[in-house]
Amino acid sequence: MPNPTAAMLVIGDEILSGRTRDANMHYLAGQLTERGIDLKEVRVVGDEAQEITDATKALSARYDHVFTSGGIGPTHDDITADCIAAAFDTPIGIRDDARALLADFYEKSGRELNDARLRMARIPDGAALIDNPVSVAPGFSLENVHVMAGVPSVFKAMVASVLPSLTGGAPLLSETLRVARGEGDIAGPLAEVATQFSDLSFGSYPFQQDGVYGANLVVRGTDSTRLAKAIDALAETFS
Amino acid sequence: MPNPTAAMLVIGDEILSGRTRDANMHYLAGQLTERGIDLKEVRVVGDEAQEITDATKALSARYDHVFTSGGIGPTHDDITADCIAAAFDTPIGIRDDARALLADFYEKSGRELNDARLRMARIPDGAALIDNPVSVAPGFSLENVHVMAGVPSVFKAMVASVLPSLTGGAPLLSETLRVARGEGDIAGPLAEVATQFSDLSFGSYPFQQDGVYGANLVVRGTDSTRLAKAIDALAETFS
Repeated sequence: MPNPTAAMLVIGDEILSGRTRDANMHYLAGQLTERGIDLKEVRVVGDEAQEITDATKALSARYDHVFTSGGIGPTHDDITADCIAAAFDTPIGIRDDARALLADFYEKSGRELNDARLRMARIPDGAALIDNPVSVAPGFSLENVHVMAGVPSVFKAMVASVLPSLTGGAPLLSETLRVARGEGDIAGPLAEVATQFSDLSFGSYPFQQDGVYGANLVVRGTDSTRLAKAIDALAETFS
Repeated sequence: MPNPTAAMLVIGDEILSGRTRDANMHYLAGQLTERGIDLKEVRVVGDEAQEITDATKALSARYDHVFTSGGIGPTHDDITADCIAAAFDTPIGIRDDARALLADFYEKSGRELNDARLRMARIPDGAALIDNPVSVAPGFSLENVHVMAGVPSVFKAMVASVLPSLTGGAPLLSETLRVARGEGDIAGPLAEVATQFSDLSFGSYPFQQDGVYGANLVVRGTDSTRLAKAIDALAETFS
């Protein structure tokens, strides 16, 4: 059975303007690979409702899971929850269980649960909350879309909350062989080995170090025995 | 006149598997912002021909410019040039000027210009070459799509080659005010100031440091006088 597929939707003007360097994509990619869920596509869009809604619809229809990051805080530019609700034509409002989480948290910290903070309790009907052990305001899963915060520490915590509930496949394994020859000398023989092991995927990532050209050859697949055989074949080819 | 718009297409299995953390998106975002070209969307896809071609078509039709990174080396998984040609229904083959660049480079470095390396001279008909001062193998611009390498040092050099030829708009400026209050306390008054300055965009980026909640409020726009006024208004609001 093939692995489940996934896409990620990163939301935020600050990524597209270059102010902030996104860290969540790389983190999620590694987590999904370990879990045997194949990340097939990532999109980054700004804080614009139509863009968020359209991208959610497109990705949700195409992949088994969609993970979003960003736009679920208390400020006026945090519009993700409403956009997800719109994408599924689902009502949204302040939900009692989410409000209770926030009320408890802010009471204990002596801060006011004002209207802005209450916006973080707006959850589309029928969604399941995603636990946020860092700052309490929850994410949520609606249909196959998992909506999480953009702040990296909170994003990571939410990924840890939601991933165990998803059915994974065979973890994608990889083995790397470092070859100290120019990629152009490697390419022909590499393609031949790749043809012999058509059940695996082969990548070549060139480097240049101290004037030496080389490449890391990465073989990916789910069967460790086949991976080992492929690496042996590469090592023999480039010995 | 509104600024030109742009999208980026990042190509490579190694990004989606989590092996490599992409660096080119953040770099390009900053460069485009300085040049007054608005980056509106980024997509990341794997080394799959249909995905690359489809994404190129979709982004090229929608934005003034598309910048791609990755997949133009000598190995079997470097299929970007062919996919771009396919997206525009344009023939592709080894081009004399690109071959001459490579022949000269490899002759000087005492390495062979073999079939694999010659693949890097495959350029779609009618494309303009993008200079690569790092490793010579050129990128190219076809229609409104600018095709560049994935290796960050080469990507940067190619961006420097191609950006001066593009018409920019007013550079997007930004000013930041750091406020040591929880974002939930900031949100209401921030939205009011944002309404007064509807020609600017306002973002709020929370942080937590030494137990103190705060947010960096970022105002973006092209008019430095308006930016200064907005920052004054925010400073007064949160004084």
